[in-house]
Amino acid sequence: MTASLETNVLPSGEDVSTAIAAGQRAYELDRKHVFHSWSAQAQIDPMPIIAAQGSYVWDGAGRKLLDFSSQLVNTNIGHQHPRVTAAIAAQAQKLATIAPQYANDARSECARLIAERTPGDLNRVFFTNGGADANEHAVRMARLHTGRYKVMTRYRSYHGGTDLAINMTGDPRRWRNDYGNSGMVHFDGPFLYRSVFNSENEQQECERALEHLERRVALEGPSTIAAIVLESVPGTAGIMVPPPGYMAGVREICDRYGIVFIADEVMAGFGRTGKWFAIQNFGTGRHGTGASGATGNDTVTPDLITFAKGVNSGYVPLGGVAINDAIADTFADVAYPGGLTYSGHPLATAAAVATIEAMESEGMIDNAARIGSDILGPGLRDLAARHDSVGEVRGLGVFWAIELVADAATKEPLAPYGGSSPAMNAIIATCKENGMLPFANFNRIHAVPPCNASDDEVREGLAILDRALDVADTFMK
Amino acid sequence: MTASLETNVLPSGEDVSTAIAAGQRAYELDRKHVFHSWSAQAQIDPMPIIAAQGSYVWDGAGRKLLDFSSQLVNTNIGHQHPRVTAAIAAQAQKLATIAPQYANDARSECARLIAERTPGDLNRVFFTNGGADANEHAVRMARLHTGRYKVMTRYRSYHGGTDLAINMTGDPRRWRNDYGNSGMVHFDGPFLYRSVFNSENEQQECERALEHLERRVALEGPSTIAAIVLESVPGTAGIMVPPPGYMAGVREICDRYGIVFIADEVMAGFGRTGKWFAIQNFGTGRHGTGASGATGNDTVTPDLITFAKGVNSGYVPLGGVAINDAIADTFADVAYPGGLTYSGHPLATAAAVATIEAMESEGMIDNAARIGSDILGPGLRDLAARHDSVGEVRGLGVFWAIELVADAATKEPLAPYGGSSPAMNAIIATCKENGMLPFANFNRIHAVPPCNASDDEVREGLAILDRALDVADTFMK
Ligand SMILES: Cc1ncc(COP(=O)(O)O)c(C=O)c1O
Ligand SMILES: Cc1ncc(COP(=O)(O)O)c(C=O)c1O
Repeated sequence: MTASLETNVLPSGEDVSTAIAAGQRAYELDRKHVFHSWSAQAQIDPMPIIAAQGSYVWDGAGRKLLDFSSQLVNTNIGHQHPRVTAAIAAQAQKLATIAPQYANDARSECARLIAERTPGDLNRVFFTNGGADANEHAVRMARLHTGRYKVMTRYRSYHGGTDLAINMTGDPRRWRNDYGNSGMVHFDGPFLYRSVFNSENEQQECERALEHLERRVALEGPSTIAAIVLESVPGTAGIMVPPPGYMAGVREICDRYGIVFIADEVMAGFGRTGKWFAIQNFGTGRHGTGASGATGNDTVTPDLITFAKGVNSGYVPLGGVAINDAIADTFADVAYPGGLTYSGHPLATAAAVATIEAMESEGMIDNAARIGSDILGPGLRDLAARHDSVGEVRGLGVFWAIELVADAATKEPLAPYGGSSPAMNAIIATCKENGMLPFANFNRIHAVPPCNASDDEVREGLAILDRALDVADTFMK
Repeated sequence: MTASLETNVLPSGEDVSTAIAAGQRAYELDRKHVFHSWSAQAQIDPMPIIAAQGSYVWDGAGRKLLDFSSQLVNTNIGHQHPRVTAAIAAQAQKLATIAPQYANDARSECARLIAERTPGDLNRVFFTNGGADANEHAVRMARLHTGRYKVMTRYRSYHGGTDLAINMTGDPRRWRNDYGNSGMVHFDGPFLYRSVFNSENEQQECERALEHLERRVALEGPSTIAAIVLESVPGTAGIMVPPPGYMAGVREICDRYGIVFIADEVMAGFGRTGKWFAIQNFGTGRHGTGASGATGNDTVTPDLITFAKGVNSGYVPLGGVAINDAIADTFADVAYPGGLTYSGHPLATAAAVATIEAMESEGMIDNAARIGSDILGPGLRDLAARHDSVGEVRGLGVFWAIELVADAATKEPLAPYGGSSPAMNAIIATCKENGMLPFANFNRIHAVPPCNASDDEVREGLAILDRALDVADTFMK
């Protein structure tokens, strides 16, 4: 399909054989000198990527692959968007870096553009370098704002790799970092397909999950809880779109007990769900609003939103916390005791300004919504109907999960929680052989193309998934 | 001197009046939307910086100022080094971002260049976004490598703003983030001028500080201590260059008890002290080597080195941990449980490659050493001799502190520990009025120009400091 090389020049203008040789050297030096995230260093075999453009990357052999992962679900505008790479080059020539204590035009404009898009009175932005430190600082703000220590987060979540952020995380990656003293309390969120509440439908799941949360708050002691942190739509953990009313219910619980509501939009934000922020899919009417019923003022409004990834598609490291007026006021006359050298980095924020403008002017948010409802959603449901190994597909916008099972009746996952399996390895290999990079986690494949993917690119991805699911089906019990 | 504008075009090619207007707008939006590090948000008045070049920046009125702070001691190659800004533009056009699990040529080459420059067998590099997360991950590696939890760090230190890193920190910024459960044990490091050991000379201070540390280890329980973390030369806390033998003694204590020795080189690394890494100033012969006696194999070798800032002068956010073979081996066949979306970011590492090459080919490391021994050191000692308010000057390379006192006999600092004072505010204001940006902390002014500052620029800075110290002298008791 697109697996072979069409010309001997890469999109960057580089000669292919030169780039292949550079990729080979990159691999060799990598094996000697690069220590990799989340990996057993001797057991990995990192694929060189020698070029990228739009929805595609080129591997170490010069083969073109459809990037249906958006890397780590961050290249929401695709690879090498010319407007953004040009903005980075221009800012580099103008002013690459300046310390946080000064005022800088790229930083100020970026803060304005973000504050304009967040719901409610989240009018101020504290910039960080990525998602983990955004969550670290959000928790700090909540603790100091409330004078309380404990933080509640859900199982099946990911909040980052630094010490506090990995302890917030509800995922096995926390375990070896969890010494039991981080002040975190984990609870169960709504997830009908694997309901721990024995629910029969979304409304029941919503009600029971809220009852569970409120009971947990009551038993832990409301006066001890600084914040409840939720991914607006949990990402790596499985894209479990919360049922209508759940986020509004969490907001009410937070209000009832004076708890800060932190929405982690690191993966779900900046267009991924077909809205600027995923929380904007959820209305305030507890059971009155549809799953995508929120419009304008009706949106559930968290107190803090953390973001990274999509804010500038990861072209330059950037994250941050959008802060409401009440919490900002806590630090009006008393210093906020936190900071970092690169807070509001000019190059990173200039890339974000260009990214937001490109998303806006090219209608990428609407495109993501339309892809979800017209192509990716229907296409995945069709695959689910035709492949027994698909337990469920779920998602919205360009943010979808395929939940794979070894047994449709018991829902036994095709890989254990926290692990891999020969079946999953075979599925991933089939995707790659057929010219596509998937995003995989445990027993799931996520279909997460860029927000500006074309209809044909998404159809191409669906076709490759179809073949990979043929392989998956052979592993059924 | 250089305070007035010479042309109506900025180094970036921008028209000055356009840039001044943009700076004004940046200020207004900043006050509405930007939440600042370490600040009481309503009480700050951020100076716009509208351009920068080499050792200079331009403020919101278009005034040229000597940057004797290197921002937050990060622009070791000065502002807007053409080779590095060009490399950023080129990498942006080629491949801005790629996820950590792939192999990438910029990342691989950067890891190689760093591993070549670190002492001993620190052959692998885990890349982060900045200094705080570098320290977080170094501590994690040490904890998992040793199976121990507690970490020892010194008072009068700074290690970063995330939760674990600020708890490592020995500075009042920790206090409001310290809930007593982070597993940190703080101890006193050598600091003859304010010796807590009642020492009379450097050798005594060294011996007593090592005895103190070893006693602390013994009383805390050697089998409970994962790591000892030290800035090779403490930076923000006061540039207290450790006496000859101290770092070697710490290395011996670590070896004796199976403790991981982590050197934080976030501020001191990449040329600041006139060596690639500050630890390379310290030899292994416990009392046999001079303060700058280390050469080649004689260097004290920590197990982990954390870095950020100078690695690419902060042009693109980047940090990391250089890892020795023994610790890397711990994660050869068992996954390292940590990571981040932007680990080994292509744009950031490409900027580092260009920075290291520029520093190398332009002799910046040697320049920093020479400036320290021939101009900045003698110049500051001359100021100390002529101004009663100067209690001590100390440092090496382009890394110097001026310790200001209200009373030479009692050594009462000119601002309290953790605070400011009218005297310090007046000194800082005088520097700015005379065309210079200083780095100030509590009762200290640090003279920390870029590594490639010219002799004349350093002399210009010394002349302005001379005037500021006239003001300081008026506050003496
Ligand atoms: C929801 C969520 N929060 C936080 C993070 C952490 O972001 P980073 O890797 O930039 O630290 C991630 C990264 O995948 C994420 O998906
Ligand atoms: C010695 C030292 N370590 C760590 C840090 C934290 O680095 P960052 O601000 O990039 O997180 C700093 C920053 O000033 C530092 O000076």
